[in-house]
Formats: sequence, C-alpha cells, structure tokens
Amino acid sequence: MAKPHNKNNHPSRKRRRQRRRHQSAGRVPGSLRVSRDAVATTVRAIGYDSTGIEDHPNFDISQLPKLLGKWQKVWVDVTGLGTEATLRELGQQLLLHPLALEDTINVHQRAKVDLYSDHLFFVAHMAASQPDRLTEQCSFFLKHSLLVTFQEQSNSTWEQVRLRLRNGHTGLQQGGVDFLAHALLDACLDSFFPELDHLGDQLDSFDEQATEGRTPVDFHQIHLIRHELLQFRRIIRPHRDMVNELVRDDCMFVTAETRVFLRDCFDHVIQLLDIVESYRELAADLRDFQMSLTSNRLNNIMRVLTVLSTLFLPMTFVTGLYGMNFDTTSAWNMPELHWRFGYLFSFGLMAIFTLGMMLYFRKRGML
Amino acid sequence: MAKPHNKNNHPSRKRRRQRRRHQSAGRVPGSLRVSRDAVATTVRAIGYDSTGIEDHPNFDISQLPKLLGKWQKVWVDVTGLGTEATLRELGQQLLLHPLALEDTINVHQRAKVDLYSDHLFFVAHMAASQPDRLTEQCSFFLKHSLLVTFQEQSNSTWEQVRLRLRNGHTGLQQGGVDFLAHALLDACLDSFFPELDHLGDQLDSFDEQATEGRTPVDFHQIHLIRHELLQFRRIIRPHRDMVNELVRDDCMFVTAETRVFLRDCFDHVIQLLDIVESYRELAADLRDFQMSLTSNRLNNIMRVLTVLSTLFLPMTFVTGLYGMNFDTTSAWNMPELHWRFGYLFSFGLMAIFTLGMMLYFRKRGML
Amino acid sequence: MAKPHNKNNHPSRKRRRQRRRHQSAGRVPGSLRVSRDAVATTVRAIGYDSTGIEDHPNFDISQLPKLLGKWQKVWVDVTGLGTEATLRELGQQLLLHPLALEDTINVHQRAKVDLYSDHLFFVAHMAASQPDRLTEQCSFFLKHSLLVTFQEQSNSTWEQVRLRLRNGHTGLQQGGVDFLAHALLDACLDSFFPELDHLGDQLDSFDEQATEGRTPVDFHQIHLIRHELLQFRRIIRPHRDMVNELVRDDCMFVTAETRVFLRDCFDHVIQLLDIVESYRELAADLRDFQMSLTSNRLNNIMRVLTVLSTLFLPMTFVTGLYGMNFDTTSAWNMPELHWRFGYLFSFGLMAIFTLGMMLYFRKRGML
Amino acid sequence: MAKPHNKNNHPSRKRRRQRRRHQSAGRVPGSLRVSRDAVATTVRAIGYDSTGIEDHPNFDISQLPKLLGKWQKVWVDVTGLGTEATLRELGQQLLLHPLALEDTINVHQRAKVDLYSDHLFFVAHMAASQPDRLTEQCSFFLKHSLLVTFQEQSNSTWEQVRLRLRNGHTGLQQGGVDFLAHALLDACLDSFFPELDHLGDQLDSFDEQATEGRTPVDFHQIHLIRHELLQFRRIIRPHRDMVNELVRDDCMFVTAETRVFLRDCFDHVIQLLDIVESYRELAADLRDFQMSLTSNRLNNIMRVLTVLSTLFLPMTFVTGLYGMNFDTTSAWNMPELHWRFGYLFSFGLMAIFTLGMMLYFRKRGML
Amino acid sequence: MAKPHNKNNHPSRKRRRQRRRHQSAGRVPGSLRVSRDAVATTVRAIGYDSTGIEDHPNFDISQLPKLLGKWQKVWVDVTGLGTEATLRELGQQLLLHPLALEDTINVHQRAKVDLYSDHLFFVAHMAASQPDRLTEQCSFFLKHSLLVTFQEQSNSTWEQVRLRLRNGHTGLQQGGVDFLAHALLDACLDSFFPELDHLGDQLDSFDEQATEGRTPVDFHQIHLIRHELLQFRRIIRPHRDMVNELVRDDCMFVTAETRVFLRDCFDHVIQLLDIVESYRELAADLRDFQMSLTSNRLNNIMRVLTVLSTLFLPMTFVTGLYGMNFDTTSAWNMPELHWRFGYLFSFGLMAIFTLGMMLYFRKRGML
Repeated sequence: MAKPHNKNNHPSRKRRRQRRRHQSAGRVPGSLRVSRDAVATTVRAIGYDSTGIEDHPNFDISQLPKLLGKWQKVWVDVTGLGTEATLRELGQQLLLHPLALEDTINVHQRAKVDLYSDHLFFVAHMAASQPDRLTEQCSFFLKHSLLVTFQEQSNSTWEQVRLRLRNGHTGLQQGGVDFLAHALLDACLDSFFPELDHLGDQLDSFDEQATEGRTPVDFHQIHLIRHELLQFRRIIRPHRDMVNELVRDDCMFVTAETRVFLRDCFDHVIQLLDIVESYRELAADLRDFQMSLTSNRLNNIMRVLTVLSTLFLPMTFVTGLYGMNFDTTSAWNMPELHWRFGYLFSFGLMAIFTLGMMLYFRKRGML
Repeated sequence: MAKPHNKNNHPSRKRRRQRRRHQSAGRVPGSLRVSRDAVATTVRAIGYDSTGIEDHPNFDISQLPKLLGKWQKVWVDVTGLGTEATLRELGQQLLLHPLALEDTINVHQRAKVDLYSDHLFFVAHMAASQPDRLTEQCSFFLKHSLLVTFQEQSNSTWEQVRLRLRNGHTGLQQGGVDFLAHALLDACLDSFFPELDHLGDQLDSFDEQATEGRTPVDFHQIHLIRHELLQFRRIIRPHRDMVNELVRDDCMFVTAETRVFLRDCFDHVIQLLDIVESYRELAADLRDFQMSLTSNRLNNIMRVLTVLSTLFLPMTFVTGLYGMNFDTTSAWNMPELHWRFGYLFSFGLMAIFTLGMMLYFRKRGML
Repeated sequence: MAKPHNKNNHPSRKRRRQRRRHQSAGRVPGSLRVSRDAVATTVRAIGYDSTGIEDHPNFDISQLPKLLGKWQKVWVDVTGLGTEATLRELGQQLLLHPLALEDTINVHQRAKVDLYSDHLFFVAHMAASQPDRLTEQCSFFLKHSLLVTFQEQSNSTWEQVRLRLRNGHTGLQQGGVDFLAHALLDACLDSFFPELDHLGDQLDSFDEQATEGRTPVDFHQIHLIRHELLQFRRIIRPHRDMVNELVRDDCMFVTAETRVFLRDCFDHVIQLLDIVESYRELAADLRDFQMSLTSNRLNNIMRVLTVLSTLFLPMTFVTGLYGMNFDTTSAWNMPELHWRFGYLFSFGLMAIFTLGMMLYFRKRGML
Repeated sequence: MAKPHNKNNHPSRKRRRQRRRHQSAGRVPGSLRVSRDAVATTVRAIGYDSTGIEDHPNFDISQLPKLLGKWQKVWVDVTGLGTEATLRELGQQLLLHPLALEDTINVHQRAKVDLYSDHLFFVAHMAASQPDRLTEQCSFFLKHSLLVTFQEQSNSTWEQVRLRLRNGHTGLQQGGVDFLAHALLDACLDSFFPELDHLGDQLDSFDEQATEGRTPVDFHQIHLIRHELLQFRRIIRPHRDMVNELVRDDCMFVTAETRVFLRDCFDHVIQLLDIVESYRELAADLRDFQMSLTSNRLNNIMRVLTVLSTLFLPMTFVTGLYGMNFDTTSAWNMPELHWRFGYLFSFGLMAIFTLGMMLYFRKRGML
Repeated sequence: MAKPHNKNNHPSRKRRRQRRRHQSAGRVPGSLRVSRDAVATTVRAIGYDSTGIEDHPNFDISQLPKLLGKWQKVWVDVTGLGTEATLRELGQQLLLHPLALEDTINVHQRAKVDLYSDHLFFVAHMAASQPDRLTEQCSFFLKHSLLVTFQEQSNSTWEQVRLRLRNGHTGLQQGGVDFLAHALLDACLDSFFPELDHLGDQLDSFDEQATEGRTPVDFHQIHLIRHELLQFRRIIRPHRDMVNELVRDDCMFVTAETRVFLRDCFDHVIQLLDIVESYRELAADLRDFQMSLTSNRLNNIMRVLTVLSTLFLPMTFVTGLYGMNFDTTSAWNMPELHWRFGYLFSFGLMAIFTLGMMLYFRKRGML
C-alpha cells in the first residue's frame, strides 16, 4: 500500500535538470562572460593528414601557425570554458566572430548553424557524462583546414572518434576536417540513444507491471520520465533544422561527400525525435491507464461498502428495535418480545429487510 | 466483477514490441555489426524476362555475372541477416554503398530513400509473420537491370509476388525490375491492412459491448491496442515521405509507368495512416466513454449509500434512544417507555425523522 | 435514474459503420475482384446537347459508338458493382485504366483525382441512402464528350440533377460533360449537409438539456455521435485535396467556366470540415461538461453523507452508552442513570457532541 | 449550495446560436432561394465625390445610371434579403454573377473573396445587433466606381461610417469606393471586439472568484462561453484568408493606398483569432482548475467521514458490547458489568480501540 | 490541511493582467485617441556619432532640425503617451504615417513590422517594470539617421543601452541608428528572460514539493502560472514573425551588419517561445500529476473506510443482537444468553463474521 506523504526515496531516478541561463537585459552582444562554475580551459591540438598524426594534449595556442604549416588538417579541441584569458586569446588568434564566441561560452544555446564570411559555426548538444546533468553543449568552428571545437567538460563521447582518428584505417585521416566534424556531431547525437533507451526500458517495465496488475504504476516515476523527455525534446528538436541546414546549404566548408554522411545524421535526429514523441505519448497513455484502473478500483471498493451497508444497516436496526426498553405491560408495546418464536421472528424480519432492499436497489440498477 | 490485482490472463492479445536499437556512440559509420539473434543468410536469385524465368533457391553469389549476362532482369533476394561473410561479399560484388549496407543490417531504420550514384536504396517495413514481433524491415537496392532485396526472415508476404512472377500473364515479367520492386513494396504495405483490420475489429467489439452496457470495457485491452497503434504509426509514417519521394523524384532507376503504380502505393500509405489515426482517436474516445460510465456508476452507488444512510441512521438512533437504561422512577427520565402506545410512538418518531431529512436534502438538491 | 447495465435501447440512433476493406497482400494491382454483397450492374445512358436529350434506362453498352455519334455529350451512368462481366466489358469498351477501374470496384478508396493520358478519373463519396450505412462511393471518368459514372446503388442523390438535365432551362444541357460532372459532385457533397445538420440538432438538444439540468446527457449518445463524426471526417477530408486539384490543375478535361463553379464546391468541402470539427469539439465539450456536473453532484452527495454521519454517529454513540448494563450498585458505574434529569442530560450530551464536531470540521474547512 | 437539477436561470447569458443552413442536394447552383424569415429589402444609394454627397434613403434602382453619371463614386447599400423581385432586379441591373448573388442571399457562407471578370465579390461577418443571434453576414460587390453592399438587417455597425462619409474631413470622400469598402469591412471586424471583451470580462470575473475561492465556478457558464467562442472562431477564421487575399492579390479593384489600410484589417483579424484562442484555452484551464478543486474538496470531505468513522465505530461497538443481556450468573459472562470501575473501564477500552486504529492507519499513511 | 473556502492569501503571486483594448467600431483609422490613464509625454533626444554624444533629457521637438544638422545619428526617445498635443506635433514634425502613430498610441498591438515609403515602423513589447502589469509596448520609427522610439513609461530596461551608448567603447556609437534600434529591441526581448526564469523557478519548486510528497501542489498557483504563460505566449509569439521579417526583408533602413545581430535576436525569440511552451506543458503535467496523487489518496482513504466498516459493522450487529430484550422464558428466544460461555461465544461469532467477510471480499479482489 502506498504512503503518499513521504515519497522521497526514488533510488532509480535522480532529478537531472538543465541549468537555466540568467542573462541581464541590455548587455553588450558579443561580450564574454565566463560562468563561475565553468571548468578551467585546456587546449589539445591534433594535426593530421593521410600520412600520419601528431597529438598535443596540452597545446600552446601560439604554436598554431607552425602546426597549420606542418599538417594539412588541424583539430583544436578546447575543453572547459572557465579560463577567460585563454578563450579571448583563442578568439583573437583564430579570428572567431565575437557573437559566435559568446554563444560558445554561454552554454544554453539552441542547436544552430551560423555562416560567417570565413568560417561555419554550429552548436550541438550531447548527453552529459555527469549524473546530475542532462546534456552538455559543444560548439564547432569549421574552416577549410581547421576545426575548432569547444566542450564544457572532458567526457568520453568523443574518445572513440579520437581512437579512430589515430587508427589510420577508418577513413577519418583521409577525409577533410568537415568529415571529422561530422564524426564528432554524429557521436554527439548517438550519445542520446542510450539515454532514451534507458527511459524506454523503464516505461516498458512500468507498462508490464501495470498490465499484469502486479503493482500500481508509480505516478512520480512517470512524471519524472515525462519531465526528462520534455527537456530532451526541447534540446534535440533544434538539431533537426541545424543538421538539415548543414545538409542542404551550399556552403564551401562542407564537401559533397560529407553531405551524404550528414544525411545519415539527419535520419538519426528524426529518429531521436520520433522516439521522444512516442515515449511521451506512451507515458501519457500509461498515466491515463493507471488513472482508469484507480477509478475502477474505487468503484469496486465503493461497491463493497454499499453491499456491506445494505447488509448490516437494516439488521442492526432490527436488533436495536428489540433492544428498546418499552414497558411491555401494555399489550401495544413490543408484544413480539413475549412471542415464543420472537427471536426467530426477528431474524426473519432482518432477512426480509435486507433482501427487500437488495432487490429494490438491484432493480433500480444501483448495485 | 473485475479482479484488479491479478490481471495476467489476456489470451486474445499478446504483447508484441519492436526491438530497440542499441548503438554505441562513436562507432565508424558504414561499419557492419551483425546482430547476434539474426537468422543465417541465404541467397536466392531469379533471372527473368518476358520470355521466361530461372529460379535459383540457393544461389552462389559468384555466379551473378553469368546470370546477368543470360537474363535481362535479375532479382537477388537475400533472406536472413546473420552471416557476416556472405553479406560483406554481397556488398563488394554488387558495389553497394557501405552506409546503405549498414542501414540494411541494423534493422531499426525508418523507411527512407537514398539515391546513390549507381543505385537507388530504400528501406520499407512489413507486418511480421512471427507472433511476438510487430514488423520486419526489408531493404531494396535498385539498379537498371538488377534488384537486390534484403529481408530479416523468410516470410509469406512476398510469396504471392513470386507466384505472379512465375506466372507469365500478370505483367510482372514484362515490366522492369523497378516494377518488380513496386510489387514487393506494395505487398509490404498491404500486409499492414489485415493487422489494422484485426485491431479495428477488436475496437468495434469493445465499442459494441460498451454501448450495449453488457460488460465494462477492459482498460488493459484498450491500452495495449493504443500502444500497438502508436508503434504502427511510428513505423508507417516515414513510408509516406519515402513513397512520395519515389513518385516525385526524377531518378533514372524508376520509369514513368511504374510511377503511376507507385501513386497507388502512396494512396495506400495515406489510407493506413488515416486508419491508424482514426483507431487511436476511437480508442481514446472509448476510454473516455468508459471513464464517464465508471464515474456515472460511482455516482449511482454513492446515491444508494446515501439513501441507505438517510433511511437507517435516524431509525437506528431512535431504537438506541429507547434502549437506554435510565432509571424511570424519575418522571423526567424517558416517560415514553411507560406510555401505552410508546412503541408505536417510536415508529412515528423514526418516520418523522427519516421523512424530514429526506425532504430537507431533496429541497437542497442533494439527493 | 440511469440503469447502466442494460443500455441496449437507443431507438434514435442506429449504429452505422463503414465497411472495412479486406485485401490480401500481393494481389495483382489493377485486378478486378467483385465484392460478394455488391448489387447487380445496370447501365443507363443519356445523350444530350443544347437541342435535346435521349435517355436509355437499360443501355446496351455495345450501342455506345452510335450514341456518341448522334449526340455531342453522353453520360453513361453505371449503378451497382456486382456483375463482373459487364464491368470488364465497360472497361474495355471505354478504354478505362485498369488501376482506375480497380479503385472503382473496391469501394473503400479515399476521394482522389488521377489524371490519365486520355481521361480524368476521380472518386467521391455521398451520404448513404440506406439506414445501416454511412456513405457510398461514386467514381467519375471524364473524357471530352463522355462522362462515365459508377455508383454502388441506385439512390436519390442524383435524381435532382437528372431532372434538371431533362429540363432544358437550367443550363446543364448547354454546359459540357465537365459541367455535368460538377453538378453531380456538388450533389454528392451537398448530401452530407442534412446528415451533419441532424447530428448538430441532436447535439444542440443534448446541450440544452444539459445546461437546463433537466436530464443528464447520455454518454452513449455523445459517444456514438463523436464516432460518426470521426468517420465523416475521415471520408470528407480527402475531398478537400481532390476538389482543390480539380480547381487548380490545368487539365484539358475541365473548362475554365466549370472551374469557377468548382470553387464553390471547394467552399462547401471546407464548410463541411469546419462543421465536423466544430461538432467534434462541441461533443467533447459536452462530455467534459457532463463529467464536471457528475463530479460536482458526487461532491454534493458526499456532503450529505458526511453531514448525516456528523449528526448521527455521536448521537447513536450516546444512546449506546446509556444502554450499557453495568451494575449500578457501584457508585462509579453510570450514576447518570439515576439522576433526575439523566434523560435530558443525555440529550444535552448529544447536542454538545454533534455541535462540537460540526464546528471543528467547519473550522478546518472540511464541511 | 448548487441545485443541479433545475439550472434554467442564467440571466446574464442568453443562448445565442448561428442558424444552420439547410440546403437540398441537387439544387441549381446560382439559383435564388429567399429565406422565409428574411427582412424586406430596402435600397439606399449614396453618390459622393470630394465635392459633396447625395443620399437617397429609398432609392429606385432604375435611377442608378443617372446617379452614376452625376457622381464619380456611388455606394448602393441593400438592407434586408427578403424581397426576391428587388434582389433579382438588382442582380440584372448591376450585372452581378449568379453564384455571387446566391452566396449573398444564402446567409451561411464562410468569409471569402471571389474575383469575377468585372467585379470583386467578398463576404464578411459582423457581430449581430439582435440579442438572440451571434453574427450577421454582409456581402460586398466592388466595381471601379460602384460599391454594392448587402446586409441582413439594418444595424448600427455601419452608422459611424455613414457619418464619416457625410463629414468631408475624414478622408472617406476623397478615397475611392475601395477605400469605403475597407472602412465598412473594418467596422465589421471591429464589431467583434466588444463581444469578445464581454466574454473576456466574464472569464476574468470567474477566474477571480475561483482563485479567491469565494464561490465555485459555474460549469454551465464556462460551457456556454466556450461554445460561443467556438462559434466565433468558426466565423472569424475564414476572414484571415479573405483579408489576406485582398491585401496580396493584384486585382485592379483595390488600389495600393487602400491595401496599406487593409494590412491594418489583417492585423485585427489575427488579433481577434489570438483573443478567441486565448479565451478558449483560459476557459479550459478554468474548467480543469475547478475540477481539481472539486476533487480536492472531495478528498477533504472523505477524510472527515473517515475520521468520524475511525472515532465512532469502535466506541459504538464497545457500548453495544456492554449493552448485551448475557446472564451474568455465569462468571464467564461479562464480569466487567459487576466491576467497581467497569464503566470507566469501558471508556478506557473505547480510548484504546480508537487510538490504536488511528495510529495504525496513520502509520500506513492512510489518514 | 487545505481550506478551500477562503483562499485569498497568495502573497507570492500577484494577479497581473494585460489591459484590454476597447475600441468602438467605425472609428476613423489613423485617428489619435489618447488613453485616460496614460502618463504625460516627455521627450529626450540624444545626438551622437563616433566622435561624441549630446544628451537632452527634456528636448524641445522644434529643435530637432538643428540637432539633425549637428549630429550624424539622432535618437528621439519619447516616454509616456498621455499628452496628445505633443504626440501630434511629433507626428507632424517627423512625418510619421498616421496609421503607425495610431498603433503607437493604442498600446495593445501585436508585435509587427510595417514598411512605409520613408520609414520602417515596428512594435515590440518588454516585461513591465510595474508590479501590477505584465508587459509594456514600445514602438520604433527607423529612418536613415533618425530613430524615434515610444514607450509607455520610463523604465529601467533601456537604461543599460543608454549607458553603453555614452561609453564609447561598446561599438554602439560606431554603428548606425539601426544598430541602436537592434540593441533596444534586444534589451526588450531579454527583459522577458528573468520573468520566465522566475516562473520556472516556481514550477521547479512545486515540482520538487510534489515529487517529494511534502505538501500537495497548490492548484491556484499552477493555474495562475499557466495563465501568465498564456499571456506571455500571446505577446511574444508575434515577435517571431516580426524579427524574422526584419532579418529577411531587403529594406534599406537596416544594414547587413545589423542583420547578423538581428539573427541573434531571432534565436532569443525562438528560445523564449520554447521556454513558454515547455513551462506550459510542465505546468499541465504537474496538474495532472497532482490530480493522480489526489485520486490515489482518495482510493487509500476509501480503503480505510471499507476496512473499518468490514471490521465493525458485523461486530456491532452481534452486540445489538444480544442486546435484544426477548423474553427468555421461551427456550427458543436467545438461549445463548443463558449459556455458560455465551459471552465468549458472542466474540467467536463476531470473529467468524468479520473474518468471513474479509476473506470473501479479498477473494473477490475487492480489498
């Protein structure tokens, strides 16, 4: 039986929320305002072409021209958005547009593409690696031979891509930096699948419990899942337009070969949204179903009460009747008490009362 | 009367679910990862033209060039996606795009069309022949004189098409491989109609039961049907865009004559979606209707209880009153007990109490 | 008072359903499969021009060339889709496309237009004349000087148009066969208005009953009306696109003058859909309103019960108290029984109990 | 306290409905069928240009050519659609298209624009001046120097425009007849604002009542308001497309200067629809809110009942127990009756029973 | 425990409403009608270019030509819409279109852009600075070197922009008046974020309370929040089209550089609408969730009642039974009273009754 007043023990589901952007009106557009809880910035640079790869885990950004001279393709991977000086220097060294850089630092942007004169800028999200957050933002600056990415924290989503880049046989070294950007974006999108699968598994197990009638579905759990799905939808939906723009637009930073692969990304986004919508509908169905069961059960319980009352109220009345203390010297006062079979008569009276009422209510369709 | 706590006996409706795709982020796009529970691969090849037909149930794929040389039109029908070596060989022999081949093997794709430089690729779904699954995926690679199809398991949906192909008078032998592809796609779509008809029949019988008031609608059944319709919608909806692209696009692999017939397929998809939507709305209407009935019935039951209480509570009170043991030597203590007609008086008192209360509540509109 | 368990007496509303198409997958597209319950086919031909009219109620289809030679405009009106031989002959004589002919026979098509090289084909629906069905399908083959129509049964919807055709002053004789087709299509669409008006009148009378509180709205009736509206919407909606295509497309079979009149048809379809949507919303509003009333009434009933209990439970307790048989030789055992005003004291006790509780609950906002 | 069974006293809100169009299928398009309850037709003609104005309240339509010769701009204002002869004569004199004239007479048209070769025809609606109707229809025939308007009844909506026309300083005399048509259309649209404001005021007062908890919201009123909003939406929505067509289309009857002002009309339509939608949502929110309150209150009432029962059922049981008449000569039969403190013991028993049960239920979270 | 009857103490949330526009039909479009509660008009003018800035807090509008002659860029900032004479003079001096000026004064316009021949006019909204209102309207007239803005009251939203304008290093002085207009519009939009954040924080805290089961969610609060979100959506939504038009249209008053920054504004509008929609859904989810909890709790309470009745009704019946006063001289009348263990027998009887009923009901799944 449920205890509705102290329900704070849900070990299986932690509350994960998106942080909210707090922005003061009238601020200068394009200004950098580093968040206090941001992680310190580290820069990693990887130069590569089809012949090899050179990896600098702690890269000095002033060495970039040298690296660009040595390798045909360079990926500058910035992790952590907490060191303002480094970020400013990066922006100036790489000639990034101030508005784009601002969107990179203020990590509550919708996924979007902006085409600037000398680079393509896009923002995406990935599932968070930390248990208390839902998603993390990452930003891409794509030039002809340079890809600069920013992410909030070091996490494992892109680790696989780095491994593939080091392994020469996966095609990543042969492709351009736009193909690398695609691989990273694909990894971001794919990181949502396990999250949604987890929610789906939970919904399925609730669904099975409910239809088998073993245990009532926990409304708290369904509410939390619907809430998370709402947040996922809000975050994933803008990716549809974003990836679509990348596929369609004729910008020079993305080659036709990569576009074929981006179509695949687009399919994934659509699939993610399909899943989120289905799960939200499924959760709503589950809730409504559980409500129906609850109201059905209430009906049954009320019927017990009514049957009970129909049985016992008249019987108790009769016992009360013959428990009255009227002076039986008057022949009009309860002569039944002196009858030989008065006791049995009282049982008969009870039976008649009870049966009569049950018949009456049944005839009126009330029971 | 329903037993809400042990509801695990629904013989008429088995739980059928789509399997979920589990994909790790960062994998190489275009890589083949054969599922463990996939069926072993067998290849069947049929060469045909308007003059005749040659059928190889167990085809050695290396013999393909010879078959292509002998017949104008060849259909390679691959069943089972479990043997990785065979699939790889097929991909290389037939020059299929790795991304398309990957979508073929990972059987949780949305229906879609992709046009590659030397072939048209599309994915469709058909109703599953196995009782525990809802749908199966099939993939089509269409070249000028070669059609390659992949399906998860051998099932009966395409059997009719094979019979028509063998029978020279149905026009299939005369048409190109694109017309054969259309016939197979049409069979896939048509396989959904009996499934939906079955759900519709169930809804209709529930509806009749509910409106005739014979038995309350089983919320479990409606919930399961809504769930299946939700899955069908998610699977069928992408076919709309897919078939529409096949009809509209000016690709060279589909002839104008076949396009006329594909318009018919498009009508079928729209009709399927219409049906799914109507059934979902109908199921929701049924559920709401049943809820209304339940809450109406609760009202009636409560009225019984209230009428009962209004009748018996005052009567029982009076009997209790004259059952008290006050010392009647004092003239102030229950003189009624010694009245000649005290017993009848008590009945009168009960009648007045009861009638008075019923009148009062009726006047206040409460009964 | 309602009797929820045997509700099978709704004289005002018969259950009317669309029959469902049962189609086996893999059938040959364009094949004729005559339904078993179809009516035997009869052919009527009317030749006319601005000079006169010639009507053959039982036309021998082989005489068509002669008729076409004699009159500028010919309408072949086929009623009943049950005689396969006649239908086949018609198809061959008139050179109708097999797919179009199939759609004509299988009467569960959505309204649609298909333009073939030598004729325009469109499918529409009209309200059924039989009481157990909702709609009937009719098909139009429009050539330059020949209109062929197919309908499921002889019904009165087109009778008016035939009368106008016979009467030379209505402009029908002067217009082309496309204008005649428009007049027939217009009659089909107009046949839905009385049906919807009937549903609307019922909803209005329910609405008035509900707001005047005379009788509770019958959930069964609202459910049936919503169900019929759902079916009407599914049938009428495709007509929007169909008529719109007829208005916009630049096909040679429809003249500009007729297009002006088809715009009027389009307005009617939009109006029909508006009405269906409004009625569905109105029905849902009614149901929700009735639910609110029900739950309001439940509240009131519960309040009666609670007031009753608050009144009588403590009073009955007191009577029970002084009905106990403790040995009053001990001065501690119920000395009240021997008090002079013990009886009155007991009434006082009841009053205090009852008032105290009522005050307490009222203060807590519970009553 | 509400009286749900006789709710026919709503002085503040009269039931206003749109009359329904009853049209027989197969009628001749373009035929005039004057409604029986239509008002007798009167014709008013106003000739004007920037130099002056000439007003004929009862105009003889045969004098029109003379008037057109004398003034550059003429407005023929037809009120009442009941005199068929006059309407026919008007149609012939002014060369109006039969279909347009039919739409003028059958006053249940959606707002729409039809461009005929020699005039522009559009239909609009205005709020009704009579208390039992919701809206009235008006029609506009716009030629180069002639505006013909039809309205169902004489009402005050256009009075202001006539005053402005008479007053030379308002720009109306300087503009063309299209500018006059715009002014009249604008007056029609503006006539909806007070109606919606009235509904909004009612909703606001209900909302305040509900949130302050003074009185429960009357479901009947909300239902009636939602119903009226539904009707307003159905009537106003087509105006959006209608005015938009007037703004965009390049027809010669509307000048560019007037188009600027029509943009303003378009803004008003959008605003009207915004308001209707918001109010419908607000009304639904109110209803749901009230439902929540009701169900909350039910919960509280039930808790009173349960507390009462928990208190008194065990106490009444104990009193019944010691009211039994067992023969106490046997030491096993109710020795408590002879105890010195038996009476007090019974109170202790009651207290223990009651407290024990309350504790148990509280521990199980049931109270 | 809640007190549903006097709920007028909500300190945390004041009722803020949009005032409603009351407009009489037939008024002259373009006429000025100053609202009675409007604030007196004050004019401030700022002339600036990249070399410096000149600020006139109380500007005499007749000095404008001089100011325009002296500075390349001039911003005329009009606060308060209450002084008709000043507004009229402004309109004439600045050659503003009468329709645009009317929209400026009647402050219940939807956000919109209108392009006039010599200026661009647009209307936007900002969050209100006063506690009893939700939003305020501001209007922009943009010419080549002159920006005229109108706002209802002096408020702090634009203060930051004025500071940045005075501070030469923020780029505002270097940009054109269109860039200044963008900065002001951006400040307007950003002013909504704190408002929505506040609502979101409240929803989050309700959500936490509800899932932790500490206190039931207050339906009043959720209703008020949903109502405010409804109003915000109605106000913010038109900004989407408005900003989009500013970004896309090729009008000469907005430079390409400013357009890049307006894209950022567009992102903000979309984000605002996303947030409003999510919050509305979240509030609805919360309400439904709370409803589920309520109905669940009702179920539990009813179960208590039923258990109680099942326990005590039969027991009380037995005690009543042996409290009857039948004359036990007849051996048929209650011989149990004289049994040695009659008292214990009666307890046994109670136990059997109670257990039997509990078993029966449990077997029927009713408890």
